[in-house]
Amino acid sequence: MRIGVLTSGGDCPGLNAVIRSVVHRAVVDHGDEVIGFHDGWRGLLECDYRKLDLDAVGGILARGGTVLGSSRVRPGDLRDGVERARSHVAELGLDAIIPIGGEGTLKAAHLLSEAGLPIIGVPKTIDNDIAATDVTFGFDTAVGVATEALDRLKTTAESHQRVLIVEVMGRHTGWIALHSGMAAGAHAIVVPERPFDILELTRRVGERFEAGKRFAIVVVAEGAKPRENTMAWDEGGKDIYGHERFAGVARQLSVELEQRLGKEARPVILGHVQRGGTPTAYDRVLATRFGWHAVEAAHRGEFGMLTSLRGTEITTVPLAHAVETLKTVPAERYAEAECVL
Amino acid sequence: MRIGVLTSGGDCPGLNAVIRSVVHRAVVDHGDEVIGFHDGWRGLLECDYRKLDLDAVGGILARGGTVLGSSRVRPGDLRDGVERARSHVAELGLDAIIPIGGEGTLKAAHLLSEAGLPIIGVPKTIDNDIAATDVTFGFDTAVGVATEALDRLKTTAESHQRVLIVEVMGRHTGWIALHSGMAAGAHAIVVPERPFDILELTRRVGERFEAGKRFAIVVVAEGAKPRENTMAWDEGGKDIYGHERFAGVARQLSVELEQRLGKEARPVILGHVQRGGTPTAYDRVLATRFGWHAVEAAHRGEFGMLTSLRGTEITTVPLAHAVETLKTVPAERYAEAECVL
Amino acid sequence: MRIGVLTSGGDCPGLNAVIRSVVHRAVVDHGDEVIGFHDGWRGLLECDYRKLDLDAVGGILARGGTVLGSSRVRPGDLRDGVERARSHVAELGLDAIIPIGGEGTLKAAHLLSEAGLPIIGVPKTIDNDIAATDVTFGFDTAVGVATEALDRLKTTAESHQRVLIVEVMGRHTGWIALHSGMAAGAHAIVVPERPFDILELTRRVGERFEAGKRFAIVVVAEGAKPRENTMAWDEGGKDIYGHERFAGVARQLSVELEQRLGKEARPVILGHVQRGGTPTAYDRVLATRFGWHAVEAAHRGEFGMLTSLRGTEITTVPLAHAVETLKTVPAERYAEAECVL
Amino acid sequence: MRIGVLTSGGDCPGLNAVIRSVVHRAVVDHGDEVIGFHDGWRGLLECDYRKLDLDAVGGILARGGTVLGSSRVRPGDLRDGVERARSHVAELGLDAIIPIGGEGTLKAAHLLSEAGLPIIGVPKTIDNDIAATDVTFGFDTAVGVATEALDRLKTTAESHQRVLIVEVMGRHTGWIALHSGMAAGAHAIVVPERPFDILELTRRVGERFEAGKRFAIVVVAEGAKPRENTMAWDEGGKDIYGHERFAGVARQLSVELEQRLGKEARPVILGHVQRGGTPTAYDRVLATRFGWHAVEAAHRGEFGMLTSLRGTEITTVPLAHAVETLKTVPAERYAEAECVL
Repeated sequence: MRIGVLTSGGDCPGLNAVIRSVVHRAVVDHGDEVIGFHDGWRGLLECDYRKLDLDAVGGILARGGTVLGSSRVRPGDLRDGVERARSHVAELGLDAIIPIGGEGTLKAAHLLSEAGLPIIGVPKTIDNDIAATDVTFGFDTAVGVATEALDRLKTTAESHQRVLIVEVMGRHTGWIALHSGMAAGAHAIVVPERPFDILELTRRVGERFEAGKRFAIVVVAEGAKPRENTMAWDEGGKDIYGHERFAGVARQLSVELEQRLGKEARPVILGHVQRGGTPTAYDRVLATRFGWHAVEAAHRGEFGMLTSLRGTEITTVPLAHAVETLKTVPAERYAEAECVL
Repeated sequence: MRIGVLTSGGDCPGLNAVIRSVVHRAVVDHGDEVIGFHDGWRGLLECDYRKLDLDAVGGILARGGTVLGSSRVRPGDLRDGVERARSHVAELGLDAIIPIGGEGTLKAAHLLSEAGLPIIGVPKTIDNDIAATDVTFGFDTAVGVATEALDRLKTTAESHQRVLIVEVMGRHTGWIALHSGMAAGAHAIVVPERPFDILELTRRVGERFEAGKRFAIVVVAEGAKPRENTMAWDEGGKDIYGHERFAGVARQLSVELEQRLGKEARPVILGHVQRGGTPTAYDRVLATRFGWHAVEAAHRGEFGMLTSLRGTEITTVPLAHAVETLKTVPAERYAEAECVL
Repeated sequence: MRIGVLTSGGDCPGLNAVIRSVVHRAVVDHGDEVIGFHDGWRGLLECDYRKLDLDAVGGILARGGTVLGSSRVRPGDLRDGVERARSHVAELGLDAIIPIGGEGTLKAAHLLSEAGLPIIGVPKTIDNDIAATDVTFGFDTAVGVATEALDRLKTTAESHQRVLIVEVMGRHTGWIALHSGMAAGAHAIVVPERPFDILELTRRVGERFEAGKRFAIVVVAEGAKPRENTMAWDEGGKDIYGHERFAGVARQLSVELEQRLGKEARPVILGHVQRGGTPTAYDRVLATRFGWHAVEAAHRGEFGMLTSLRGTEITTVPLAHAVETLKTVPAERYAEAECVL
Repeated sequence: MRIGVLTSGGDCPGLNAVIRSVVHRAVVDHGDEVIGFHDGWRGLLECDYRKLDLDAVGGILARGGTVLGSSRVRPGDLRDGVERARSHVAELGLDAIIPIGGEGTLKAAHLLSEAGLPIIGVPKTIDNDIAATDVTFGFDTAVGVATEALDRLKTTAESHQRVLIVEVMGRHTGWIALHSGMAAGAHAIVVPERPFDILELTRRVGERFEAGKRFAIVVVAEGAKPRENTMAWDEGGKDIYGHERFAGVARQLSVELEQRLGKEARPVILGHVQRGGTPTAYDRVLATRFGWHAVEAAHRGEFGMLTSLRGTEITTVPLAHAVETLKTVPAERYAEAECVL
């Protein structure tokens, strides 16, 4: 077989482990040929690629980022994107394409699959918001990085009698906030799924101080928003020069809480460190398994499918399912954390 | 309700997170009273315990070990163990007992449950060998520690053209070896489930050197053994003074491989670092969820049950199931790793 | 002897190690009595303290923060501060006071020392800007945290063809920027000691992209500023409601570089994680040695002095020296880094 | 100039940082040409080398091991070693050779220097036993790895009421034992510089248990030995088949302490993880500075010298000094640790 692989969308620890695994399984065990497209769909659309043999994937298992590069270009963005993809696949004699990516990438993959191309998707998102799989690689690393930061911040908050509002990734879902907040013992967790009430948050943090505690840690997902009309809200956006304005939920919450509580409150925005660097062992194993099973699915001719973790098993599910719904944090999980607003 | 909690058996990162979660859920949300027995079953048998309130579990979430202590004493070891447990439960007015432990602990829990005591078990094992749950806390931390060590060892092996044989925990199952070996890209993984053939292992490692590689990493579970009659085997055991003899599979393999390959081979035994220290975020979240659900199960009167992770959900399964079979590494998982002998 | 100890100013990993060491050396080896003042100078001024015995310092060696709490109150801030300190020292029968703190704390210590109180200072600053000692504890941890973040950010910047501008601590000096930038191989380092030229910075980063590189990492100390009149500069400050405006050098540089280079540029502000959490081994050893030697200096009656690391030895220097000059990054060190603007 | 660089002797985190720094400084700033010999002195003796340009050292700063490989071959081991080195230096037109290595390597460097070759040494040892410099790179990483392991082991020892005897590197000196033991708060530290008295060690550990503590951690350097005739001592050595016998101080101490104290005692041998993997920020900075200054010394014609850290400055000292004496732990440092036997 001749297999093309590409990585698309935002960075995610474990991408290289998938690439390596695809090459190992395909080349060593099946005698396949593997090529890697550069910078995601752009590489396919512009026929920019390189051959991937064992040497090309040597030493990349534990490395963050992606040796193939990534971009946010999608076939659907170009008028003739699907046709160009189709003609390049024919030209290169590809029997299977394995795109590794998140929601946007999988939608593009679905589009190409519907157009008849032999696609097997591998889900990727540090946000854990793809319903078609129990978990994806990248999430565990992001939670780990956030938890380690929260562990560090707890001691400094305590020594200085402060409220720290720590903003973690999650534009649409609160999974990273929920898990890192539970893991680090945060005192409040604010997620996009539940617009927050600033009075309720203030009350909860205030109770801690009334009970004699010296500090509080609030974990907030970047996409969290207040309930409508409960407080002034700055959407950020562009300033008059067209530059990003750097508002953000952690900064606004820190101003609000400091004023309302009369306690020093400080924002900490963890940012890109959550999606870079070496993946955890968990993510490396999951990514490796996904790559292995994507090759197997290709050899079984299961196109239009996505690798998926269900319990402890890797299975495949239709790409169509993958793009239907976002996996949000269910209410039962809030209860377990006991501190989700 | 009045709930007793205890931790028994070998150390495991996440024990304190369970204890904390039980106390939080029971005391804060249900208004229960919680006591903690000291040193596992010994505390129950000797009525040695202390009250656990919120202050008692403050700051322990991220700490390794167990604030309650542990021991290997079991009720079944004493002639009147069951009777003593029963009478102390009555005396203390306990409505539920939550033992946290591995196979041995759960067998004892099952015994007491059969005898009519209100038991809800929480599974614990760094070895991941309890079939009644997808995963238990502690395993992810152990794999993480082993993987980090393997990452370090790879560079040093390469610089010195060596074979390193790294012994990880796992007396009966090879889960830690499999996962850490996959995560770190080991060149051979030796597990108890598959007695190894020294010739095959030598051949595999030798092929690497023939292919021009400068080093090899072999991960071996402590319980791995050779196929019968394929090589001399030192079971360790006691020396003439009754002291432990410090044989071990990594040491024997290093001698064998060095002789057979003519390459420097060195054993590294990771040992107790795998079961100590702060748990990973994954283990803290899982442990916290187990504690929460154990309390819920108690309030629903679901005795004789064990908390269990199935997919992403926590459920309960009969204790009887938990003690039936060991969860061994299935053959399909070997294939994914590609380097399991 | 009766010794009082206090921690004052910003948080710094290693404070607890000093406290523990003072108690161990004084109580165990000299039979002294030690008390700890709460929240820095406030505790001395308000006679708020507790006795510190071995149990009180058990398990704190590796913990971030300070078990005594800290504040920014200084004796010189109160009209009768010096007199209150003097009378409390007499009242409590203290033979020595060991304040652990940075520049501000040491100035206050010098003031009290001049007023005749028996002071032995221990220098503390994550910024490494105290000239009276080669290094202080806290700095190594801060550099380590920043370096680990930079390691992570490199892979993500590379995968996405970005410029990342990473802001580290350092209001007046660029030591953390210099060391973390060197350690992580940053492509430009911007320090307060050298006002930067935005054209020069743009040129340097641009050259990397022209040479075919896909990304650049710029490390910038929070106190860095442009050369006068070379670019518009937003000092931050308060907005019209009196809230902090969250400008900052990394954000401004990212806007400037993105516009000038036509490459995506993103700011990352590491913030408080640099001063929280468990200290590195280096900082724990240095902090422990400082505590030990402070007690020895007290017993030798060397008041008005500060513990100091010179080479590998701990010595003492007059407090007067400690407050004279800031230790800035010398020009020779820029040359070694090769990428300091 | 034309400069040759090589790495020799045992592995040490930071070697790649030196190599990279030499290349950066020489090639970029001086327009020199740099070649790297493979596998230490062997590469020089056999004229096995490759050109090192900027690309060759890209991405290696944070990597453990050495991209040039290492071996224990020394010029003095061959009858014509010095002559071969001399003729290859002439043949290759080398103006300077920068060997990076420990005691053995520096002795060889001194030998070649005496024979008239243009040598500038860079000291390397995780053991910190080179008197000619305050510190070398590699030591901080080794201490960090050992300390992290000790942090983990403390919780597990406490939960199980055990004595753990942790063996760290250090055949001739106890620096790693001293620093990691201080950093982790060990209860006894056993170093080669002071032959231990088993009765004294037993007494000290026993006192902890008598005082109600539940565990003890003993850190022991691999080269530690008992005082003469105070206990039976197994030197290890070879068994009857010529294999290494795997005795070792930690194992013997664990047997002795278990018997004498009646408490469970277990050995943990940290082994090669101490010398592999990514260097700490401290070591990366020091290694980078050493490389930079070695090139400067070459351009100044300061041959027969060694780079050296004195306080915060890098200077050069004669190679002759470097090989004279071992830097052992001085008695004053024992006092600071309070738990060195």
